[in-house]
Amino acid sequence: MTPEDLVAIEEIRQLKARYFHCMDRKRWDEWEECFCEDVVVDTTQEGTPILHGRKAFRDFLEPVLEGVKTVHHGHTSEIALTGPDTATGTWAMEDNLWWPESKGGMTLWGTGFYLEAYRRGDDGRWRIQELKLRRIRTEVNGKQTFPAATDAG
Amino acid sequence: MTPEDLVAIEEIRQLKARYFHCMDRKRWDEWEECFCEDVVVDTTQEGTPILHGRKAFRDFLEPVLEGVKTVHHGHTSEIALTGPDTATGTWAMEDNLWWPESKGGMTLWGTGFYLEAYRRGDDGRWRIQELKLRRIRTEVNGKQTFPAATDAG
Amino acid sequence: MTPEDLVAIEEIRQLKARYFHCMDRKRWDEWEECFCEDVVVDTTQEGTPILHGRKAFRDFLEPVLEGVKTVHHGHTSEIALTGPDTATGTWAMEDNLWWPESKGGMTLWGTGFYLEAYRRGDDGRWRIQELKLRRIRTEVNGKQTFPAATDAG
Repeated sequence: MTPEDLVAIEEIRQLKARYFHCMDRKRWDEWEECFCEDVVVDTTQEGTPILHGRKAFRDFLEPVLEGVKTVHHGHTSEIALTGPDTATGTWAMEDNLWWPESKGGMTLWGTGFYLEAYRRGDDGRWRIQELKLRRIRTEVNGKQTFPAATDAG
Repeated sequence: MTPEDLVAIEEIRQLKARYFHCMDRKRWDEWEECFCEDVVVDTTQEGTPILHGRKAFRDFLEPVLEGVKTVHHGHTSEIALTGPDTATGTWAMEDNLWWPESKGGMTLWGTGFYLEAYRRGDDGRWRIQELKLRRIRTEVNGKQTFPAATDAG
Repeated sequence: MTPEDLVAIEEIRQLKARYFHCMDRKRWDEWEECFCEDVVVDTTQEGTPILHGRKAFRDFLEPVLEGVKTVHHGHTSEIALTGPDTATGTWAMEDNLWWPESKGGMTLWGTGFYLEAYRRGDDGRWRIQELKLRRIRTEVNGKQTFPAATDAG
């Protein structure tokens, strides 16, 4: 690892920070900019299909979270540069969601890992190229839902 | 971003770490050193007035937290250098407070953001110059209090 | 602090990230590699004796956590280099553990600090040389257990 590598690692960490902060502050335009156009999103553990492209991800997520208060926190990250413009990362995570009464008043709490890949574009900016979410535990309305076994690989 | 910028960013991150750790370990002298003498503290969302100066902040906070167990955690930070000796930062946060029975036994849980500015002094040390706390959700004794709407801007 | 120091600090942060992630994913071989062979582990606040050596730590912990879902999160870290190949660190932490029904179905939630020392080996890799865990609050099955007073020093 060289001092120059640290610049890339820092930019990736701030990218992921922006992803979290923009989602919870519902700054969707800035949030969308965190992803490569061709990002692949795998939250299939939650029953959703694999999504291709940042537009598809936003079209899916923004209406789902309308009126929902969300808190997404990311912890200790392992970032590895895999080429001059590519990297991988593992982040521990925890989230809390509160649906409004008008949408059923559900609460969700979960923890797990983001397993990700990043790519630096021609404009010099890092973006998320692959996002895979694997939870260790999820509770809906205070009751454990899935997964039954530790499955964060 | 240059390797030299990273030194400033790291010093600011460790400054904020010290802020959190000293508060929860009640090391108030070291905690006070985290702030510029003329720090502006805006926790007005919680009903307190804007505080001017680190002495005023400590005079306010230390007695409030006497005997109270506190846990303040900071997450993913966006740090931007805005000049040779100035910077801004956004941190996600979560806190837990437990008042002793003698003070009513209240509990508080909250999450939100610190929106901050930093300044490097003549002694070369970074300190917090502005601290603004905006919560997404607060619960007192397990019941949601404020704010009603997502308001973390 | 120099740009070169930042490389060491980053390697130590990623070491601790690996420690957390491997524990919760039960990757024990990789987890064991996070420690110096002669690591000293002090979790005596939880009633366990001081453990000497990474083999003793793994022999103790791996069977205790078999079948237990665990989530360990580390937050804001103060890392100080104390020599060319030595460092100290303070991390805020939070953990959640869920025992399976077959083992009693207990839950544990806690927060506190890791107070640590690190050493760089002849192979150039940083490892944890001392690990001391001091909690601010622990709840078993939702009830506070220990410690009664704020004791995170």
